[in-house]
Amino acid sequence: MFNYTATYTDYYQLTMAQVYFLKGQEETRAVFDYFFRKLPFEGGYAIFAGLDDLVNTLQQFRFDKKDLDFLEAKGFHPEFIKFLGRFRFRGDIYSCREGDLIFPAEPVLQAEANIIEAQIIESILLNILNFQTLVATKASRIRQAAGSCKLIDFGLRRAQGAGAYYASRAAFIGGFDATSNVLAGRDYGIPVSGTMAHSYIQSYDDELTAFIHYAEVHPDDCVLLADTYDTLKSGLPNAITTARRMEENGHRLSGIRLDSGDLSYLAKKSREMLDNAGLQYVKIVVSNQLNEHIIKSLLEQQAPIDVFGVGTDLVTGHPDAALDGVYKLSFSNFKPRIKLSENYGKITLPHRKQVFRILDNDNNFAGADTITLREEQDPAIMFHPHYPLKSLSLQKMNMEPLLHKVMENGVRLPASVPLQETARYTRERLKRLPEEYKRFNFPHVYKVGISASLRHERDKLADNYKTKT
Amino acid sequence: MFNYTATYTDYYQLTMAQVYFLKGQEETRAVFDYFFRKLPFEGGYAIFAGLDDLVNTLQQFRFDKKDLDFLEAKGFHPEFIKFLGRFRFRGDIYSCREGDLIFPAEPVLQAEANIIEAQIIESILLNILNFQTLVATKASRIRQAAGSCKLIDFGLRRAQGAGAYYASRAAFIGGFDATSNVLAGRDYGIPVSGTMAHSYIQSYDDELTAFIHYAEVHPDDCVLLADTYDTLKSGLPNAITTARRMEENGHRLSGIRLDSGDLSYLAKKSREMLDNAGLQYVKIVVSNQLNEHIIKSLLEQQAPIDVFGVGTDLVTGHPDAALDGVYKLSFSNFKPRIKLSENYGKITLPHRKQVFRILDNDNNFAGADTITLREEQDPAIMFHPHYPLKSLSLQKMNMEPLLHKVMENGVRLPASVPLQETARYTRERLKRLPEEYKRFNFPHVYKVGISASLRHERDKLADNYKTKT
Repeated sequence: MFNYTATYTDYYQLTMAQVYFLKGQEETRAVFDYFFRKLPFEGGYAIFAGLDDLVNTLQQFRFDKKDLDFLEAKGFHPEFIKFLGRFRFRGDIYSCREGDLIFPAEPVLQAEANIIEAQIIESILLNILNFQTLVATKASRIRQAAGSCKLIDFGLRRAQGAGAYYASRAAFIGGFDATSNVLAGRDYGIPVSGTMAHSYIQSYDDELTAFIHYAEVHPDDCVLLADTYDTLKSGLPNAITTARRMEENGHRLSGIRLDSGDLSYLAKKSREMLDNAGLQYVKIVVSNQLNEHIIKSLLEQQAPIDVFGVGTDLVTGHPDAALDGVYKLSFSNFKPRIKLSENYGKITLPHRKQVFRILDNDNNFAGADTITLREEQDPAIMFHPHYPLKSLSLQKMNMEPLLHKVMENGVRLPASVPLQETARYTRERLKRLPEEYKRFNFPHVYKVGISASLRHERDKLADNYKTKT
Repeated sequence: MFNYTATYTDYYQLTMAQVYFLKGQEETRAVFDYFFRKLPFEGGYAIFAGLDDLVNTLQQFRFDKKDLDFLEAKGFHPEFIKFLGRFRFRGDIYSCREGDLIFPAEPVLQAEANIIEAQIIESILLNILNFQTLVATKASRIRQAAGSCKLIDFGLRRAQGAGAYYASRAAFIGGFDATSNVLAGRDYGIPVSGTMAHSYIQSYDDELTAFIHYAEVHPDDCVLLADTYDTLKSGLPNAITTARRMEENGHRLSGIRLDSGDLSYLAKKSREMLDNAGLQYVKIVVSNQLNEHIIKSLLEQQAPIDVFGVGTDLVTGHPDAALDGVYKLSFSNFKPRIKLSENYGKITLPHRKQVFRILDNDNNFAGADTITLREEQDPAIMFHPHYPLKSLSLQKMNMEPLLHKVMENGVRLPASVPLQETARYTRERLKRLPEEYKRFNFPHVYKVGISASLRHERDKLADNYKTKT
C-alpha cells in the first residue's frame, strides 16, 4: 500500500554511495549483518517480523524523477545521478524465516550485494525489521498474558502515521486475533473487528435507541459500548433490554464493551447482571490503556473477560519504543571486516555466517544458538562470544540452520508467505521453546555462542587492527 | 507522499456509519472536538503539529475500488457501499494555527460535518495530530536543552515504517535544524544532512584512505566519523591528517563525529587535539542514544559540542510514546452533547466552542486560556473546569481567539503554510510564553478555564442525564 521511493533513506547512504561510485568501487561486493543487541521488554525471546514487507519493498525500491531532481539540486555528481536512475537492488538476502524466535547478537539476516546497493537499503531495512520485530514481540507477550482470550489491535489512532499498517501486521504474527485497522485487514487478510464509539451513543437522545438501532443494522455482530453514561445503572440495563429484543428476532447479542472505570469490578458485576438475565452467551470485551501487565492482573483477579482490545502500548512497543537492531559490515572486497569498540558487546563478527539452533532429543529448542562461518556444517563446540572459558560441547546434538536464501540477484526466491502461515509458524516455534525462556519476569537467558573457527577469525582480525593503532 | 485511502480507519467508524446511513441520519450535522488530557514529558506546554498534513489528507480521502470490494465482501449493505463510493469530506474544520502552543483539555480543533463524514475521519485525524504533536513537543524540549547548538533528526531507522516521514516534519516545527531523512527533505524542504557510517570506513583497509576519499568527493561538506577503531588514537589523528590535506587544496574539514564512548570526555579531548593542530574551525558532532536529558548534562559538563544528532528518543517520543489526544462529540442534531464519567477529567464539554488566549500588558501570554461558547466575544471571568471556587477575572485583559476556520465544505481556506513559516511561528509563540512554563522540570501549570456560559451549559446537560439514570 505505502510505496517508498528510494529516497526514504538516510542522507549519508547517498553521500557514501557517491564516494564508492566516483572512486570506482561500485562493483565491490559487500556483506552486511542485521542483528539486535538487547531483548526488548526484558523478555526471553524476540519474534522476527517484517521480512515479507522488506522483500516486497526491495523489489520495487527505485529513485523516481522527483528524487533525482532533488538530488541533482543538492549538488550530487551528474554521473552518479544517472547511476541512481538505474538503481535496482540486485543482491542476495539470507534470512531467518519470518516469525521465528530470535536472540541478541546473532545475524538474523545477511544482505550480500555490491556495496552501494547493500548500503542504500540499510535505512529502510532497519526501519521495517526493527519496528515489526518490536511489535510482534510485544504482541507475543500480551498473548502470553491473555491466555486463550481474544486479542484485538486498536492501535491505529496512537501509531506513527502510516506506521499502524505495519503494527497491525506484526501484532497478528505475535498472536493477536484481529485488528480495528481496515486497511491492514484489506491488504494482509487480518480479521477486522470493531463496535461503536461513545460519540455514536451520545449522538442519540437516549442510549437504548442507539443500542437498538445498532442491533437492527448489525444483528450478527453487535457489541454494545456500556460506559457512556453509567455502566451498571444505564449501559447494562439497556444492553440487556436490547439483547432480549434481539432474541425475539432470532438473534443474539455478541457482547458488551467496557472502556473505563475499574475493569475487574465492572466485568464481574456485568457478568452477574448478564447471567441473571439469562444472557450467559454475551461476551465481555474490555479496552482502555491495556498492556500485558494489566491483562495478567485482570485475569489473576478472575475478571470474567473474553476479549481484550489493546492499542497504544502495543503499537508503540511501550516502554521500549524501539528495537536496537543494527546493520553492520562483515565482509567486503574479498576480506572479512570488523568494527572494534571499547564496549565488548559492540565488537562485530566478521565473515559470511550461518546460525544453528541446537535441538534436544525431543526436537525442542535446547536453549542455545551457535553462530558459525557460513560453510561450517557441524560445529563441535560453541564459545561464549566474550568469556573464553565458557563453552558448550555440541557433539551429538541435533541442529537446524536458521539462515536461508530468500532473495537472489534482487528476486524473491520462495513465494511470499501468507500472514496466517507466518503466525502459525510463530506459534509452533514458541511451543518448542521451554517454558523458562517464556517466563514473564526474569526469564532464563538463552545462549548465543560462536564456533571455534569464527572465534579464531574474529580474534585474528581484532589483533591486526590493534597492532596497527 | 503516502496517500491513505479511507479504509485507513478503525472498523467501527464504518459499522457506525452504516447505522447512521440506514437509519436516515446521514445528513445529521455533528461537531467533534479534538483535545488531549495530559501534557507529554511532564513539560509545561505542547506544540500543535500535523494540521497541514491533515488538511491535505482530508482533501483526498476516498474509498477506492479495492476498499469497496473488500467492504462488500465483509457484508456491508449495497446501498451503503454505493454511498461510500461517493464519500468526500465536505465539512468545516476550525483549528488552532499549526505550531501554536496548546494545553490540556482545550479544543485545539473542531470538525463540523454530517455525522458520517465527521466520524469516518476520526482515526486518521487522531493518527496524524497525536503523533506530530508528540514529536514536535519532544523536539522543542530537546531544542530547549541544546541552546544554540545545531540539531539533526536521525530517527528514520527506529521509527514506525512510514512514520518517520511525519516525525522529521514535526521535529522541524519543534526546533530541529535538519534531518537525515532524504524523502522528508525532498517533500517538506527540510535541510538534509549526513556524513558516513562505520561500514564505510570498515570497507576500506585503512581509516585514513577512507577519510581522504570522502574528503575528495565531498570537500565542502565533510564530517568524518572518528570512532570506528579507536577515537583518540586512530580517528582523530587520521581526521587531522585529512584536514591538513584539505587545507592544501583550499578546503576545510567541516567536522568530526563521535558515536560511542563517553561523549563528554571524547569531545573535550578531541577539541584539544583539533585546536592544538590549528583546526579550531572543525566542528564536533555527537550522536548515540541522545535525548534532552543527556544533551543538558553534556552541555552542563561544558563538553565542546557543536551539533547533536538525535534519533530514537525523538521519533518515538520516549518515554511517553503517544499523546492521549481524543476526538469527542460535542454537538449533533441541533443539540449539545456530553460524555459523563466517574473520572471528572473525562467529562466532555458540550457545544461549538472558541478558545481565547489571555495576554498581559506586553502582549505576552498571561498563563491562561479560556474556553467559551463559540459566539461569546468577551468572557469576563473564567472558572476552573471542576473546582467551582477557583476563578479568574478577565476584565480589561487582552485576549486572542485561537480557533480559525481552515476548511469550509471540505476545501482548504487559507493557503498551505510552508513548514519554515510554521517553525518560525512556533519560535515566536515560545518567546511569548513566560520562562516558568518552559522550565524543564516541574514547570508552572498553565491554566485552562471555562467561561460562565459554558459552565452553565455543561452542568445543565450533566444534570439532565443524571436525573434520567
